[in-house]
Amino acid sequence: MGDQISEQTINRLSLYLRFISELDATGVRAVSSKVLAAQFDLNAALIRKDLSHFGDLGVRGVGYIVKDLKHRLRQILGLNRHLNVAIIGAGNLGLALADYPGFRQEGFRIVALFDSLSTKVGGQSRGGVRIHDIGELDLVTRRERITIAVIAVPAAAAQMVVNTVVQTGIKALLNFSPGTLRVPPEVKLKSVDVTVSLENLAFHLARN
Amino acid sequence: MGDQISEQTINRLSLYLRFISELDATGVRAVSSKVLAAQFDLNAALIRKDLSHFGDLGVRGVGYIVKDLKHRLRQILGLNRHLNVAIIGAGNLGLALADYPGFRQEGFRIVALFDSLSTKVGGQSRGGVRIHDIGELDLVTRRERITIAVIAVPAAAAQMVVNTVVQTGIKALLNFSPGTLRVPPEVKLKSVDVTVSLENLAFHLARN
Repeated sequence: MGDQISEQTINRLSLYLRFISELDATGVRAVSSKVLAAQFDLNAALIRKDLSHFGDLGVRGVGYIVKDLKHRLRQILGLNRHLNVAIIGAGNLGLALADYPGFRQEGFRIVALFDSLSTKVGGQSRGGVRIHDIGELDLVTRRERITIAVIAVPAAAAQMVVNTVVQTGIKALLNFSPGTLRVPPEVKLKSVDVTVSLENLAFHLARN
Repeated sequence: MGDQISEQTINRLSLYLRFISELDATGVRAVSSKVLAAQFDLNAALIRKDLSHFGDLGVRGVGYIVKDLKHRLRQILGLNRHLNVAIIGAGNLGLALADYPGFRQEGFRIVALFDSLSTKVGGQSRGGVRIHDIGELDLVTRRERITIAVIAVPAAAAQMVVNTVVQTGIKALLNFSPGTLRVPPEVKLKSVDVTVSLENLAFHLARN
């Protein structure tokens, strides 16, 4: 198991976890794949298939036990430990991401911002994340046990920054710059492409 | 045609357009599905299938004529006209998005920011996008012919803001708030969920 899990399945596991956590917080004890299907506008069989990759999580006639499923999803997604994240680029986007409240509740900790501008270095985000000089990336990454880097620099600088980050040994990158970036095969790069999402909306507007 | 086009196909069309535009800018005149496949780490047959939804765009023995394909992709994606975009929420994220250079080159125009804080209203982003009072949304939307709204407000306010936006008649929303938001069936909502992307990275880190 593991290798054949699609990116789509992994993304859906995150969505399930979000909803299951809400259910748990409101005291719900069990949930069926039908309820999950209605919530996400998906087929119940698809949801059962997504979850069956990771063993037999359902209980016949009951559905999924909310607390168990939450625990298992967190485990599957590698969220049963804190993950320390660095943000490269302390512009508006980097500062917005540094204080994004969603990260904390999911077990991610933004431990450092990095920038090359001396006027920014030594400052901090509104939420108190300190801005370091990019030259200290290697040092701070080791000290703070950073395993994920978020790339929030202008497109022209992005590939160079990615190369620097990869050299420190960080194996997981979340990229917000437009355009294609290259990483070695052992490094996982996910891109959040705002233009693709906007163009998807434009497509739907053009059709209607 | 149209209804059976998947979201994945639409998203890939955006990526093809990005690369085709780069090829065009560097003077390349024709490109094969094999070259596109290598660029995107996809199967050439999948790329031909994506493009065949929209008529016979390839030329036998030549591949795709770059200028023609670019023109056709822009048309398919509804980018052959300017699309005016409003950003709701003038915090760090809203301000970052307002000045995001990628939007302009793709034909999107950020024409207004909105916020409810009187200390922000009347100000502008670094790039010169003016911040309006959210109470003026209806008026400014009509005046500026806004067709897309970007939701960049805290999660607790998001559903209320979405309802207000939908009431103005805007049919396309790009959401940056975490959590599930409801819109009527005639409205298209795309969510950019940063936590899902980070959890996808966490999954890969946990496996390796």
